Amino acid sequence: MSYYKKLEQHARKLSRLDHLSAICGWDQAAMMPSGGAEARSEAMAELAVISHELSTAPYLEEWFASAEKENLTDEQRVSLAALKRQWMMHNILPAELVEQKSLLGSQCEHAWRTQRPANDWEGFKKNLEPVVELARQEAAIRSKATGLSLYDALLDLYEPGMTTEVLDRIFADVKTWLPQLIQDVQNKQQAESIEPLTSTFPIEQQKALSLNVMKLLNFDFDHGRLDISTHPFCGGVPTDVRITTRYDEADFTSALMGVIHETGHARYEQGLPKQWRDLPVGQARSMGIHESQSLFFEMQLSRNVDFAQQLAPLAQQTFGRGSDTALTAENINAINTRVKPGYIRVDADEVTYPAHVILRYEIERDLIERKIEVTDIPVIWDEKMQAYLGIDTKGNFKDGCMQDIHWTDGSFGYFPSYTLGAMYAAQFMAAMKQTVDVKSAITSGDLSPVFAWLEANVWSKGCTLSTDELVKQATGETLNPKYFQAHLNSRYL
Amino acid sequence: MSYYKKLEQHARKLSRLDHLSAICGWDQAAMMPSGGAEARSEAMAELAVISHELSTAPYLEEWFASAEKENLTDEQRVSLAALKRQWMMHNILPAELVEQKSLLGSQCEHAWRTQRPANDWEGFKKNLEPVVELARQEAAIRSKATGLSLYDALLDLYEPGMTTEVLDRIFADVKTWLPQLIQDVQNKQQAESIEPLTSTFPIEQQKALSLNVMKLLNFDFDHGRLDISTHPFCGGVPTDVRITTRYDEADFTSALMGVIHETGHARYEQGLPKQWRDLPVGQARSMGIHESQSLFFEMQLSRNVDFAQQLAPLAQQTFGRGSDTALTAENINAINTRVKPGYIRVDADEVTYPAHVILRYEIERDLIERKIEVTDIPVIWDEKMQAYLGIDTKGNFKDGCMQDIHWTDGSFGYFPSYTLGAMYAAQFMAAMKQTVDVKSAITSGDLSPVFAWLEANVWSKGCTLSTDELVKQATGETLNPKYFQAHLNSRYL
Ligand SMILES: [Zn+2]
Ligand SMILES: [Zn+2]
Repeated sequence: MSYYKKLEQHARKLSRLDHLSAICGWDQAAMMPSGGAEARSEAMAELAVISHELSTAPYLEEWFASAEKENLTDEQRVSLAALKRQWMMHNILPAELVEQKSLLGSQCEHAWRTQRPANDWEGFKKNLEPVVELARQEAAIRSKATGLSLYDALLDLYEPGMTTEVLDRIFADVKTWLPQLIQDVQNKQQAESIEPLTSTFPIEQQKALSLNVMKLLNFDFDHGRLDISTHPFCGGVPTDVRITTRYDEADFTSALMGVIHETGHARYEQGLPKQWRDLPVGQARSMGIHESQSLFFEMQLSRNVDFAQQLAPLAQQTFGRGSDTALTAENINAINTRVKPGYIRVDADEVTYPAHVILRYEIERDLIERKIEVTDIPVIWDEKMQAYLGIDTKGNFKDGCMQDIHWTDGSFGYFPSYTLGAMYAAQFMAAMKQTVDVKSAITSGDLSPVFAWLEANVWSKGCTLSTDELVKQATGETLNPKYFQAHLNSRYL
Repeated sequence: MSYYKKLEQHARKLSRLDHLSAICGWDQAAMMPSGGAEARSEAMAELAVISHELSTAPYLEEWFASAEKENLTDEQRVSLAALKRQWMMHNILPAELVEQKSLLGSQCEHAWRTQRPANDWEGFKKNLEPVVELARQEAAIRSKATGLSLYDALLDLYEPGMTTEVLDRIFADVKTWLPQLIQDVQNKQQAESIEPLTSTFPIEQQKALSLNVMKLLNFDFDHGRLDISTHPFCGGVPTDVRITTRYDEADFTSALMGVIHETGHARYEQGLPKQWRDLPVGQARSMGIHESQSLFFEMQLSRNVDFAQQLAPLAQQTFGRGSDTALTAENINAINTRVKPGYIRVDADEVTYPAHVILRYEIERDLIERKIEVTDIPVIWDEKMQAYLGIDTKGNFKDGCMQDIHWTDGSFGYFPSYTLGAMYAAQFMAAMKQTVDVKSAITSGDLSPVFAWLEANVWSKGCTLSTDELVKQATGETLNPKYFQAHLNSRYL
């Protein structure tokens, strides 16, 4: 057997273990009773050890060296590069640092769960400092191995090819127009009244509505399912994608829009190239591209009055509220497009969301590059919230710099993906509209032309192209944030 | 670290992989959409390979030899014996035979799924013959390694300590009184009329009833859950037991009694000794003892008029049928204790069930000992069905010798466990009644004294005692089938 084939086989083995880990992880969040937690963690950790041993097996270095000398097809060469990237990612860090990171990260996260509600910044700071220190060490090691700058070396984990240079430029541009836009939209929306949702929306009915909307979005129920968890996510494996939501009986739109978002993630996974199943080259391109698909579904496709016209009759029928004036298409759309600056990123609307991300990006970049320290975070946080969103967070740590889980376990470099996703989504939509009549597709209720475009241009590509190349082939140019700005202006002004 | 401790650690590792396999297996049966099947099988097979490699690691032989020379506590010595038994079970068979068995078994089973409905004995026979041949080879290898007779060496997989000699004696006794008893009970029940169940029992309500009855049986919902699958089972792990049922809208009693049965299996698992979690000595004693717990719950505890008096108001309330005369305690009990010889083992009542088991035992014992061949099965099957149950199965293979899945995948030696379980259950109940007022416990709705007895005498023992010793300590004597006979006589005559 060729060394390339041996590497493929090895990767498939790892992917199959990941499969079991993904299903048991989903079960942990969606099905497991609390008493099962301890033994489950032990079992998952055991599998992680086995996976890590396989990923870092000493014979792999020689296999890669030999495979690179083999006579490979172009496709195999691309696949080999993806295999090698995955292998290097696993092997760059010394085992001791990986262990420390996992240990300090889970300690910090565990304490955070009580420190956050208690607004205990001083307590949290003590745990976060060593986590940041480790992240800096990790950045230094990755930087040395990849030749990237410190922060870029972490960014590379989630957004291969993206750099601080590009982000600084793009976000600087956003900052020139976003605060004013937020102001203008609020002024405009002041004149528009929203009919508030009343009474309750039973969970069983919300579930039925969710399933119906997933059908409208061509979710493949033969390869996936919808369940409930405290923190909604898209998990499982491409052949069996598990999405979750949580239902608020007072407001059906939150779960509904969440389900549409996760359905976007899910259809990307379901649409990945089947010939590359279980291999790195067959996986999703990046976190930003993944988020571009969920935000395409949620923001580009669904938060407009045409789509609301599809949702409204389904909602009226499911809840048996044909004459509820809060459930008209216009009112649902007004709810879905309301802009209001707030403390919490995960509750933010489409317009204010980038401000939350840019703020976090600027702080974590400077933290990793040792330009600021953990102790400086609250003051900087407050300054930026004032500047970008006009919100005062002084002394309010729990709804300020302590609100996210990302930093507690050392995931620095992840935040930009959210706004990159929103930008890619807007750019994809603009390009799609050149050849697809999206409005007619929505109005007709047959969205297949929209999905055919995404499948051909994004999903089926897996990881065979760089992000830049993927976006260029799909839209004619690399990332251009003007589409996002144009989208916000056109929808909200 | 001592070699004993190393072996413990090794066993815990294996048990944690089994944990993931159990949860993913449950998911496969209860949650997974059909399109996920192929990748899931591959993932489970990959884990099985890793488990097998670990179970048969070459260093273990030396570890066992060294551990046996160590200074161990009595408890550790018992644990070491259980560890060694498990290790030997995995290592006796040559890898080639294991592979062949798995391959031919799944081929035979796969074909059986269409051959059975088509009543295609000739087709099935061709696949079953090599499966039986492999089972004979397996028996020969195990017999050589253990010193047991051919069939006993297979029986030992499910019922360590049980022998053909004991089974022959016990079943010979049963055959002297069972056919007449079946006749007598039928004659008696002819005079008793049953009010048939009418209309439908919605699944959601049946589920609510099941959960209520599980609560009555003190199922620990913090360490387990109830779901739906085509073939009901008890799976998961002791800290998180997953039981399943299937609902028949025309007859709520079938799912209900099934749930009670699986709850018995589940409470045994939930009650296993926590200090031995993840080690062989902490596992259930045997298949027969496991079945004794499910049958204790289903047959001993629940199929009587006192328990029906607990069930009836719950059922009436859940289904909103307070005045349905089919849902009185007396009628539910009449349904639950109806005796009627039939073709199908899994549908058989408590009285006729042993006949189905004895028939299968006699055939598989003679098959393994090469006294008969596969081609002889239908004629023998028919003779025994006529003799034990007065039923003609000539030409009806699908409801005759092709009805069970057990032989298709080579699980010879399993069938006796069902009737051993029924006998142990009757013996446990007789012993329990010496110190526990079972009738009052049922009538009061507080069954905890019953469960306290089972926990103290069976569940908490795990695998620390031999089956004979367990039963002797619990009941004062080893297996004595007269308790089963007395139970049937007292309930049905
Ligand atoms: Zn997302
Ligand atoms: Zn059972």
